[in-house]
Amino acid sequence: METYDIAIIGTGPAGISAAITATIRNKKIILFGSRELSDKIRKAHLIQNYPGFPECSGEDLCNAFAAHLEKMGIEITEEKINAVYPMGETFALQTMKNEMHQARSVILACGMVQGKLLPGEEELVGRGVSYCATCDAPLYRGRSVAVIGYSPEAEEEVNFLSEVASEVLYFPVYRDEPKVSESVKVVRQIPQAILNKEAAEEAFSLAQADPAKSSAKDLASGEALSAAGEALSVDALKQGQLAVQTTKGTFPADGIFVLRSSVPAGQLIPGIEMDGEHVKVNLQMETSVPGCFACGDITGRPYQYVKAAGQGNVAVLSAVSYLDQK
Amino acid sequence: METYDIAIIGTGPAGISAAITATIRNKKIILFGSRELSDKIRKAHLIQNYPGFPECSGEDLCNAFAAHLEKMGIEITEEKINAVYPMGETFALQTMKNEMHQARSVILACGMVQGKLLPGEEELVGRGVSYCATCDAPLYRGRSVAVIGYSPEAEEEVNFLSEVASEVLYFPVYRDEPKVSESVKVVRQIPQAILNKEAAEEAFSLAQADPAKSSAKDLASGEALSAAGEALSVDALKQGQLAVQTTKGTFPADGIFVLRSSVPAGQLIPGIEMDGEHVKVNLQMETSVPGCFACGDITGRPYQYVKAAGQGNVAVLSAVSYLDQK
Ligand SMILES: Cc1cc2nc3c(=O)[nH]c(=O)nc-3n(C[C@H](O)[C@H](O)[C@H](O)COP(=O)(O)OP(=O)(O)OC[C@H]3O[C@@H](n4cnc5c(N)ncnc54)[C@H](O)[C@@H]3O)c2cc1C
Ligand SMILES: Cc1cc2nc3c(=O)[nH]c(=O)nc-3n(C[C@H](O)[C@H](O)[C@H](O)COP(=O)(O)OP(=O)(O)OC[C@H]3O[C@@H](n4cnc5c(N)ncnc54)[C@H](O)[C@@H]3O)c2cc1C
Repeated sequence: METYDIAIIGTGPAGISAAITATIRNKKIILFGSRELSDKIRKAHLIQNYPGFPECSGEDLCNAFAAHLEKMGIEITEEKINAVYPMGETFALQTMKNEMHQARSVILACGMVQGKLLPGEEELVGRGVSYCATCDAPLYRGRSVAVIGYSPEAEEEVNFLSEVASEVLYFPVYRDEPKVSESVKVVRQIPQAILNKEAAEEAFSLAQADPAKSSAKDLASGEALSAAGEALSVDALKQGQLAVQTTKGTFPADGIFVLRSSVPAGQLIPGIEMDGEHVKVNLQMETSVPGCFACGDITGRPYQYVKAAGQGNVAVLSAVSYLDQK
Repeated sequence: METYDIAIIGTGPAGISAAITATIRNKKIILFGSRELSDKIRKAHLIQNYPGFPECSGEDLCNAFAAHLEKMGIEITEEKINAVYPMGETFALQTMKNEMHQARSVILACGMVQGKLLPGEEELVGRGVSYCATCDAPLYRGRSVAVIGYSPEAEEEVNFLSEVASEVLYFPVYRDEPKVSESVKVVRQIPQAILNKEAAEEAFSLAQADPAKSSAKDLASGEALSAAGEALSVDALKQGQLAVQTTKGTFPADGIFVLRSSVPAGQLIPGIEMDGEHVKVNLQMETSVPGCFACGDITGRPYQYVKAAGQGNVAVLSAVSYLDQK
């Protein structure tokens, strides 16, 4: 396996800036992200405060960035990273397709996930909650899974899961009509929390005891059941290890996949020091993990293009010093 | 006197970025610098790592910045700031022309001065060493001054001093032939240090005692004297309060003006906390002085365009929060 000098995760302004300066500094890099670069750039209507581009559209800025990458011969590896493991001298990067890459340093430039983490999500990651269908689907062969998808991108993974799991509940958290296999049960309700087994059972018996008082009342009263298109019972619940809670019901499943366009910062690399929901960095963009640097929205507010680009530049120069010192 | 929300000192990428975002945030700003923006941009031959501008010249980037400022109606006040005084609710900004401006917050975006401070310089500021001819010339009416000028810009101030002081020694630290009044004595030697009276006298007597061993030997042997175009004697030295030391001699003067294109960071605002030669900031670009923020080269390495622009953006958004909280 090839060992890169620097793996850069993210193709927003932070990752693009890091990749450009790394290339000038003659480092062997791998840049993970999308050839569309970043929705947060492309979809902006009017950008007024990226110096040098007065009143441009997101599309314009995106095209200028793409031209810059092309001019420098920088390629984008269109893969999502699921996890980064520090292995001593190198880092192992696991993609959502369960492939591995290796690099001597890592730059986290993956932006911030849309919306907050669900209550219960963080505690249950690795204990039934997963961010990567390809990586973890085999664990759920013949068992039930629920998928919470934040964009139509998730549908491919939902279909894949439906080939492996015994049943798939899908909660699409976006407007478009989801296009998924027939066997997938689509639930048009907004997930409020992820419950562990005890909490799920409690919510469920509460609902049965006093349907009027419980947020799970509709489940007991049958409304959520019809929404899910199947009859849920206490027995069914007992089989599930976890549950998705909506305002209308409690939906049990053995595994729960949360598919956002990006893995939450703190989940990407085990044990990294956080500052609230952001990765903690110093002025040199060093994180608590030696050889791992972060830049852009992931490091905190303000969320701004030129700040992200500036930090990407600093992060990569710190990575270059780190490599040179080795 | 008008009170601005934010005074921004410097028209490099840091100050330009700050001014742009401040304007979007509807703040009343005053931007000090040059219509040429920054020599460090304009004079760069090839810039490859300002994202969005693949392989541009400094001139190109400078023009793009200028167009951005113009589009937003941002004006540049072509004045150099000599000192910033925190006055409680506001800051007073003194220009090199000894005019005063007032603002509720300040952003230091003045880059780094070329070269290191001279030994002795820092200790003697305000005790014979000055950065502002207009402000301090009156102190030297009928007395002798030495001027160390780091660019031809300094010549105007040299000529002004020659109208006031009894004699002016000029040390131009640049290639071009200086164009100064006839009465000014030009010394083509590189200043090595600024000496206080005791040190100057010591250097001088050492040179007389043993010309071969002293760095001031040429002064004693007459070489520096002819360079300065005048006969210096122990008596003359005794009249001077300080001296400029070069490798070839020791040149006494009552006052010494050090004219760089920028005032050293730590001298601009009294008592500001430094980190070596840089102004100390945190991730929000706050300095140790409440209401005063810093960005760009002045905050430390790396010295890079996009890092400066990114920090300018953060500094101004921090200033906006600071103002909003008041
Ligand atoms: C509608 C809108 C308008 C805005 N307008 C402005 C504005 O006018 N001015 C301004 O300064 N800012 C604006 N912003 C904010 C700006 O978009 C962000 O601050 C900026 O994009 C952050 O850059 P970034 O590089 O940190 O992350 P992002 O731009 O979010 O890019 C992150 C990248 O990482 C990729 N990624 C994430 N996780 C992974 C993974 N696990 N593996 C591989 N790739 C991954 C993503 O696909 C994406 O390409 C706006 C934002 C929005 C949403
Ligand atoms: C030849 C050269 C090539 C370079 N090439 C690159 C490159 O390829 N890529 C890269 O990223 N970086 C490069 N750099 C570094 C880059 O130029 C700096 O990091 C950047 O300009 C710093 O921006 P700044 O806004 O902090 O300060 P500056 O650009 O130095 O601007 C400071 C401004 O403040 C003004 N000022 C200073 N003091 C005062 C005062 N007291 N009152 C009023 N105004 C004041 C100055 O006149 C100036 O306009 C290069 C530098 C040089 C010299």
